Amino acid sequence: MDLPASFRLDEPVDVDALTTALDGQWGELRRGVRAQMAATVVRDNSDLTTEQFRRQVFDDLHLLAKTGPARLGFDPEYGGMGDPAASVVAHEMLGFGDLSLMVKAGVQWGLFGGAVQLLGTRRHHERYLRDIMDLQLTGCFAMTETGHGSDVQHLRTTAAYDPATAEFVIGTPDPTARKDYIGNAARDGRMAVVFAQLIVDGRTRGVHALLVPIRDGDGSPMPGVSIEDCGRKGGLNGVDNGRLGFRDVRVPREALLNRFGDVGEDGSYSSPIEGDGRRFFTMIGTLIRGRISVAGTAGSATKRALAIAVGYANTRRQFERPGGQGEVVLLNYQAHQRKLLPALATSYALSFAQHELVGGLGGLGELSGEGRPDERQQRELESRAAGIKAVATWHATATIQACREACGGAGYLAENLLTTLKADTDVFTTFEGDNTVLLQLVAKGLLTNYQSQVGDLGTLATARFIAEQFAGAFIERTAARSVIERLLAAGPGRDDETVLFDRAWQIRAFEDREKHMLDGLARRLRRAAGNADDRGESDAFAIFNDAQDHLLRTARVHIDRVVLEAFVAAVERCPSPATRVLLSRVCDLYVLASIEGDLAWFLAHGRLTAVRAKSVTGAVNALCELLRPHAQALVDAFAIPRPYLGAAILAGASS
Amino acid sequence: MDLPASFRLDEPVDVDALTTALDGQWGELRRGVRAQMAATVVRDNSDLTTEQFRRQVFDDLHLLAKTGPARLGFDPEYGGMGDPAASVVAHEMLGFGDLSLMVKAGVQWGLFGGAVQLLGTRRHHERYLRDIMDLQLTGCFAMTETGHGSDVQHLRTTAAYDPATAEFVIGTPDPTARKDYIGNAARDGRMAVVFAQLIVDGRTRGVHALLVPIRDGDGSPMPGVSIEDCGRKGGLNGVDNGRLGFRDVRVPREALLNRFGDVGEDGSYSSPIEGDGRRFFTMIGTLIRGRISVAGTAGSATKRALAIAVGYANTRRQFERPGGQGEVVLLNYQAHQRKLLPALATSYALSFAQHELVGGLGGLGELSGEGRPDERQQRELESRAAGIKAVATWHATATIQACREACGGAGYLAENLLTTLKADTDVFTTFEGDNTVLLQLVAKGLLTNYQSQVGDLGTLATARFIAEQFAGAFIERTAARSVIERLLAAGPGRDDETVLFDRAWQIRAFEDREKHMLDGLARRLRRAAGNADDRGESDAFAIFNDAQDHLLRTARVHIDRVVLEAFVAAVERCPSPATRVLLSRVCDLYVLASIEGDLAWFLAHGRLTAVRAKSVTGAVNALCELLRPHAQALVDAFAIPRPYLGAAILAGASS
Repeated sequence: MDLPASFRLDEPVDVDALTTALDGQWGELRRGVRAQMAATVVRDNSDLTTEQFRRQVFDDLHLLAKTGPARLGFDPEYGGMGDPAASVVAHEMLGFGDLSLMVKAGVQWGLFGGAVQLLGTRRHHERYLRDIMDLQLTGCFAMTETGHGSDVQHLRTTAAYDPATAEFVIGTPDPTARKDYIGNAARDGRMAVVFAQLIVDGRTRGVHALLVPIRDGDGSPMPGVSIEDCGRKGGLNGVDNGRLGFRDVRVPREALLNRFGDVGEDGSYSSPIEGDGRRFFTMIGTLIRGRISVAGTAGSATKRALAIAVGYANTRRQFERPGGQGEVVLLNYQAHQRKLLPALATSYALSFAQHELVGGLGGLGELSGEGRPDERQQRELESRAAGIKAVATWHATATIQACREACGGAGYLAENLLTTLKADTDVFTTFEGDNTVLLQLVAKGLLTNYQSQVGDLGTLATARFIAEQFAGAFIERTAARSVIERLLAAGPGRDDETVLFDRAWQIRAFEDREKHMLDGLARRLRRAAGNADDRGESDAFAIFNDAQDHLLRTARVHIDRVVLEAFVAAVERCPSPATRVLLSRVCDLYVLASIEGDLAWFLAHGRLTAVRAKSVTGAVNALCELLRPHAQALVDAFAIPRPYLGAAILAGASS
Repeated sequence: MDLPASFRLDEPVDVDALTTALDGQWGELRRGVRAQMAATVVRDNSDLTTEQFRRQVFDDLHLLAKTGPARLGFDPEYGGMGDPAASVVAHEMLGFGDLSLMVKAGVQWGLFGGAVQLLGTRRHHERYLRDIMDLQLTGCFAMTETGHGSDVQHLRTTAAYDPATAEFVIGTPDPTARKDYIGNAARDGRMAVVFAQLIVDGRTRGVHALLVPIRDGDGSPMPGVSIEDCGRKGGLNGVDNGRLGFRDVRVPREALLNRFGDVGEDGSYSSPIEGDGRRFFTMIGTLIRGRISVAGTAGSATKRALAIAVGYANTRRQFERPGGQGEVVLLNYQAHQRKLLPALATSYALSFAQHELVGGLGGLGELSGEGRPDERQQRELESRAAGIKAVATWHATATIQACREACGGAGYLAENLLTTLKADTDVFTTFEGDNTVLLQLVAKGLLTNYQSQVGDLGTLATARFIAEQFAGAFIERTAARSVIERLLAAGPGRDDETVLFDRAWQIRAFEDREKHMLDGLARRLRRAAGNADDRGESDAFAIFNDAQDHLLRTARVHIDRVVLEAFVAAVERCPSPATRVLLSRVCDLYVLASIEGDLAWFLAHGRLTAVRAKSVTGAVNALCELLRPHAQALVDAFAIPRPYLGAAILAGASS
């Protein structure tokens, strides 16, 4: 199909202006981290043994500890910089580099240090935060168990209070309760934040976190602590994941990270939050930075893969062009454009969604308990973080895979970096929350309007709550509210082929789909819950399980809409007109490729006619062709530090 | 939705009968290889250095050389067994084991040995075949060049005949002409079959293959031969891939593998095949076994991944079932069933398609030149092999990825095998022909009715040939012709919801889609070719490039139809009624999940109403639920030798 005549992109691309748009409000911070990374000497680690690689990464972590980013997320009173959002942004930048180092840093300062900062109180901060920042104290975040990964609320490690000695006794009741996949556990960790069922006076108070020493000064396991090595993994082999077991391990009463629940010397339990479930979700909620960080670093790794694949596709030639005009550059093939350019557009979209997420993070003050934000707002943010983590990591998996394939045999060589990127990011879809489970959280949030008092998804109570409370889908905009209102008010009057490129039509298409799916889902659950009224809990599982595909798709289209809004907001705030036009076309490609991927829904629900549906495919092809000359600029704008683009195929060594 | 009442699967599954169906006509051979593999002691190679791993695999290759399968594909006169089909089947079984060993064996006996057997003549067979089988002579298949991977016809290595000494002079004219990614080159190969442009008396005769020694008895490169190591790869690190360059390397006249083209002592060129292009494609055509083998081994690796993921999903529990009924087994979740069971059904389907392919392979006699099969038939088989290779390897990539994710964190540990399977199979989509290029070959075959005289896809001549010769799509059945005729004659009379399960309706749906897409594609190319008549070759590229998505999808739906036919044939010949019923339901799941994946086409082309389209999704869910109790039996029937199912999560060690 032909694009509207106004769609020509004749002006040269201002790469810096694009980078500024992608950097968002943290341009200065990003430029600083970039400069640091640009000075790094990258060492090849593709043929190291596990032990050699772990040593190298631990050395690199010590270098990193000397730089600013390690301190960003911590309390200024102890040498931190008190800016959690900035710490997430800096961590995202580490995603351009070696991902083992990024994860190792995330475990140490994000998960372990973050738990001490956010779940602990002054006594923990005073004693530990400096050492954590300086790497004097290396620690683990021991939440996941062999038997309970997704269902953390039911983990089985116990911490029983013994008032006789004012100590907690940590125990692993059975093999499924051992802590598993724990970063820093196999080699370097000296202490662990251990999540356990708190038992006080014989009564369980739900999951709490305690600081437990796991190794002594010599590096030997502490008495009662058993440590196993998880061994080689699919990737990230510079991180020492391990398993921890506890047999009557005693820690003092003060080891409890007691911000949300405390035990007095006399064995009295107290908490500022009533209800074990609500307390648990509040505690978990403070850890939202982890999920946002995974989405961000997945985005960085994906951008790096795209930069390599687009760079190669722009120089590599294959097959003679008929008529003796030389061989054809790969990126001139439509199939090759389709492999890379819609993914590139999606990477832009997710970058902007990430801005909105990070921007929503409160300051340390809020996180420390003073002036907590509106609870519902907080839950919406957590839900959105979960959903964007799922979408961004699946996008990473699919895109890095496509980039590898787009580079053929060369893409399979370690020297071209793509296989390592694939292997290292592969676990992102299932760690920090399994994506399928996370999308169910999103759906639950939508169905219950982020009510905290609603229990697990899948219970009859939840089904009944939905049946009684759900009053119809409500589209709550998370970005660019006024811009979107204005766009929707303006267009579109016409209904010809070009309507596909009308931003108002696009936004309506996404909103309408979400509303329709959510209403349909609620209706379906309500009907099933009504039927089940007399049969009880045994049917509650079946009600939700039968609708699971519907549930997951609803969550997915909700996130798609949120991402689109963020993209629209970014386009609108871009000050450079030429850059704004280019971003608009990238946004069009994001939207239309997304619609093309879900075309059956739009057809089956009468939102697109058969003719219009075909023109969606034509529009995607035409946008690919339009953007193709600017593909290099679009990846250059990621401003990936040069040392991390050292793929041999980009050096022309193999071309 | 509710399935037809007759769909209950109450009888216990006869796993052996399923295995017999999957084994096809090579049951005895497979049982033999299985018994050998069952006795193997599997060594962990996940933390070996590249050199250690290569040494281990080369040792294992020597053990393998002592067994029958290495000899299956060679001429009995020299100790072979003269059964190429059996050699492909035996190789497919190696795909259950370490894939580095499988590829190393494929390079040595399939590619290198196969080229000597099939492109050489008696003088080569007498001198080399025994040593190749015994591993006295280790060799390379040096076809791919850095600059020419997919476009082999234009590779640039030269072999110029020097009548003064009756030698060929092998040369690498520039860095892009070096041989790249060559298995056995970096460490173990002593000789290479080198593909080069043959130059006789100043005239180029197109690509021919020559035997060139690359290392002397001490393992040092021969004079004029440069060898580089490709280094670490994304997987398959037990295989020593390297780069070969040639500087005035002289080999005797007899080094030319001269079955399809020879040079007399006086420098006269002769060939039984006229036309450089036709000769080239005939030579390449003899190498069909390589592609069929890749499809087969991809299938074996996928089955292994499914066996691990289904086994785990059948025991692993997560989240309490409301009402205190314990935790829910993963495979009881609909989303989990959807991740694994349609993929399992597709693996069954592709197994049967593989049977038809292997069954189409001629005997060694034919391959040696006596009684060549019908040329058109041969080209159809080559095209089908290309298409099934593409579909099977993409299925492997997607399914092994899904299996990894379905096992969560445990799936990321090397001890659970899935990450190694993913890494090792990743190159399958781009080696032995890049999948995107292969699907274009398939489309070309369909558009030209497998005419050999038609040149490259993308030329104006091809466009004109299609414009003038294409007489409408013709559905040529490749399996179960009479069965399908009978099924089509019988049904369906009704047109209610259950029509989706009617085999005749399913076959018609696939045939109709293929016919419609192919006719549409031809019409589109014809129209474009007509418009381009006066503008010449520069437009020919654009004509095909603009239609590339259409072209690739047409090839894809053609292969889908061929696969379905093979499944129908397999169901029909299954002697056990209960097994036949079970296979029928697996076939239904294959068909309906495939239609669900392409629902937009069926809707946009009026083949399914919106209501019927929704019931496709309901039918897939219902079939998943129906087959779920038999999922374990369906993977057990793969009969994967026990030592290769040593995933820790299957031993219950982590559960």
